[in-house]
Amino acid sequence: MTGGTPAPFTADDYRARMERAVRAAADAGLAGLLVAPGPDLVWLTGYAPTAVTERLTLLVLTPGQDPALVVPALEAPDAARAPGAPALTLRDWTDGKDPYAVAAALLDGSGRFGISDNAWAMHLLGLQRALPGTCYASLTDALPMLRAVKDPAELELLAAAGAAADAAFEDLRALPFRGRRESEVAADLDGLLRAHGHSVVDFTIVASGPNGADPHHEAGDRVIEDGDMVVLDFGGLLGGYGSDTSRTVHVGEPTAEERRVHDVVRAAQEAGFRAVRPGAACQDVDRAARAVIEEAGYGAYFIHRTGHGIGVTTHEPPYMIEGEERPLVPGMCFSVEPGIYLPGRFGVRIEDIVTVTEDGGGRLNDTVRELVVVD
Amino acid sequence: MTGGTPAPFTADDYRARMERAVRAAADAGLAGLLVAPGPDLVWLTGYAPTAVTERLTLLVLTPGQDPALVVPALEAPDAARAPGAPALTLRDWTDGKDPYAVAAALLDGSGRFGISDNAWAMHLLGLQRALPGTCYASLTDALPMLRAVKDPAELELLAAAGAAADAAFEDLRALPFRGRRESEVAADLDGLLRAHGHSVVDFTIVASGPNGADPHHEAGDRVIEDGDMVVLDFGGLLGGYGSDTSRTVHVGEPTAEERRVHDVVRAAQEAGFRAVRPGAACQDVDRAARAVIEEAGYGAYFIHRTGHGIGVTTHEPPYMIEGEERPLVPGMCFSVEPGIYLPGRFGVRIEDIVTVTEDGGGRLNDTVRELVVVD
Repeated sequence: MTGGTPAPFTADDYRARMERAVRAAADAGLAGLLVAPGPDLVWLTGYAPTAVTERLTLLVLTPGQDPALVVPALEAPDAARAPGAPALTLRDWTDGKDPYAVAAALLDGSGRFGISDNAWAMHLLGLQRALPGTCYASLTDALPMLRAVKDPAELELLAAAGAAADAAFEDLRALPFRGRRESEVAADLDGLLRAHGHSVVDFTIVASGPNGADPHHEAGDRVIEDGDMVVLDFGGLLGGYGSDTSRTVHVGEPTAEERRVHDVVRAAQEAGFRAVRPGAACQDVDRAARAVIEEAGYGAYFIHRTGHGIGVTTHEPPYMIEGEERPLVPGMCFSVEPGIYLPGRFGVRIEDIVTVTEDGGGRLNDTVRELVVVD
Repeated sequence: MTGGTPAPFTADDYRARMERAVRAAADAGLAGLLVAPGPDLVWLTGYAPTAVTERLTLLVLTPGQDPALVVPALEAPDAARAPGAPALTLRDWTDGKDPYAVAAALLDGSGRFGISDNAWAMHLLGLQRALPGTCYASLTDALPMLRAVKDPAELELLAAAGAAADAAFEDLRALPFRGRRESEVAADLDGLLRAHGHSVVDFTIVASGPNGADPHHEAGDRVIEDGDMVVLDFGGLLGGYGSDTSRTVHVGEPTAEERRVHDVVRAAQEAGFRAVRPGAACQDVDRAARAVIEEAGYGAYFIHRTGHGIGVTTHEPPYMIEGEERPLVPGMCFSVEPGIYLPGRFGVRIEDIVTVTEDGGGRLNDTVRELVVVD
C-alpha cells in the first residue's frame, strides 16, 4: 500500500483536494467523509501507513472543521511527515484506548457519512456502535466521481505510467516465449516495468494457451508452447499513478480461428474507444464494445465489464458497465478492455487506458493492436 | 495477499477448520460467519484472490449448510483450484449483477453474523442494505480466539519461520552497518530472509539513531553512524506462516545510558516471557513487561502494547494488552516485544515470538538478547 515513489504534490495541493471533497460531500447531503488508508487517503493526504492493520487510522473531513487524522500514537511521527500533513490536525490515540470514541467526538451523531470502500468492517462496526444515530454509504455509492476526473498534473503522471508500460511491452515482445514458463516471462515483465520507471508492480498476468481463458489467471508453471495464444496484462505505479494494459500475442503462426477471434476483440476495443466522448454514458462504452463481440457470435464468452477507472489505484470508478448511466467528463481515465474467453482453449484481451478529452477520447497506451507473433 | 508458497494443508484440513468455525459460531449465538479475502479466508480455505478489489468474494459458513463461496465469475476458475475448494460450493456472480443478493439468499434475514475484520465497509453496507434485519460483529469481537490456538502442524510452520528469521539475523549482524543507508541494510535483510526460505517479506525495519524512537519507522535514507543504536524488526511468511522478531544492535561501543536502557528492555522482555503460562490472562504478559520498564523510570516511553498474535498473518488476536482478560491457552503464539523510545535520541525493542506450552512458554526466536555491537 505504500506505493513507492510518492506523487509530486504539495501540502497546498492536498489541502485543495480535501476542500473539494468536503464541498462535494456537503452537496451530496453528507455530514462528512471518513477516509481509510488506501487510495482515498493517498489521494487526499499523500499518507500511506507502513502497514494497514487493526489499529484505526481515519481521516475525518467535515464542513466547517479542519481536516483531522485519527492515528495510532506509534504511527503519528510517520503521519506527521506525510506531504499533506501540514493541512491536517493529528488526533492520536494510544493502545488500550477506544479509537472510535476519538473519531466519534469529531462527528455529528445523527449524520450520514461517506466512508472509504475499503475501510475495515471492524472499524465501520466500531463507529456504528459508538454513534448509533449515524448512517453510512460507501464512497463509491455516495461520491463515485470524487477522484474520477483527473487534473493536468495527474493526467501527466498517468500518461507517463502508460508510456512506461508500453515501453516494457515493446521490450518484452522481442524476448523468447516458446519453451519458457509463464512465471519466467512474468519475471521479465516485472523487471522491464521497473527498468522503465515503475516503483511498484501490481500484476503481471501471463496466461498461455488454455490459461488465457481464465481472465484472472496470473502466471504459473505452464511451459509456453508453439501455437499458444498468450494474454499479457500488466501494470503498477509510476510516480504514484497507475498503469494497466493488455496485449495478446501468439507463438508462431496463428490459425484462421485465432486470427478471427483476435480481430473481433480488436474491433470491439476500437468501438469502445470510439464511444468515448464527453456526455456519453459509461455504459455506452460497454455497449459499443460488447455489440461487436455479440454480433460476431462470441457474446457468451465476454464475461466481464469493459473497463474501470484508474488513478492512484488500478480499480476505481468510473466503471464501464451496463447500468452505469453517469456521463463521461473530460479528464476521466479508465480502461477499455474487451475480451473473449474460450474455456479450455484460449483467450484474447486487448486493453488501453483512455482519457476523455474535450471532443472524444485519447489513448494513454498505444502499442500495436494487431496480433503480434512472438518466438 | 497471495502469501507465496501455500501452507501444506489438504481439503480435509480446511473442511475440519470450517466445521470447527461453524460450531464456534453457533456456540457464540451467531447465525453464521462471513469471511472476506485475507487471513481468515486463507486459514479456512487456502484461497487468496490475485487481487482484493471492489468485486465481492465472501465465504458463507452457516450451521446446517455446506460452506459456500460467493465469487466473481471471472475469478471462479482460480477459486476452484484452491486447496480447500473441494469442501466448498462456489456461487459465482457476473459483472452487473447484485452480489449482495447472491449472499443474502444464503443468510437468515434476522441473524447476527460474524464478519472478517478486514471485510470492506462497502461490502458490509451492501449486506446491511440487502438484509436490514441482520446484525454484525467483527470476528475479533465475536470469535477472537478462532485462529488463536495453533495445532501441531501450524506450530511446526511457525517454528520454521522463526528459525529462518533468526538465521537471517545471525547473518546480518556480521555485515557492516557503519556508513551505509538504512535502506541498504533493509535490502540485505530482505535478501537474507528469502535466502533462508521466506516466500514473502512483509517488513524490514531498520531504524537508526533518532529514527529508532519512532516504533513504526521502516527504513530510509539516513546513513548509519558510529555510536548509533539500530532497531531491527523484520518478518514475513514461510510456508504460509509468519515470522516477526526484533533485536537492537549498536554501532561501536555503547554509552552507559544506552546499555542501561537496553538492559531494562531485555529484563522487561524476559519478565513478559516468564509470565506466559496456561491460565494467565493476556494482560498479565503486558503488565509483567511494563512493570519492569515503569520501575526503571521509563514507563512514559513504552508507548505500545506488549504483543500480538501471529499465524497466517502477523497481527491477529490474542493481543497482550491491558484490559485483555482472556486466558492463555496451550498452542497460542504471539509476540513479546517491549520497547523504550526516547524522542529525538534512540529506541530499543526486543521481540520474540513465544508459544504457550502445557506448563509455561516456549520461544520461537532465540538469538542473543544481549546488546550486540556491530561494525
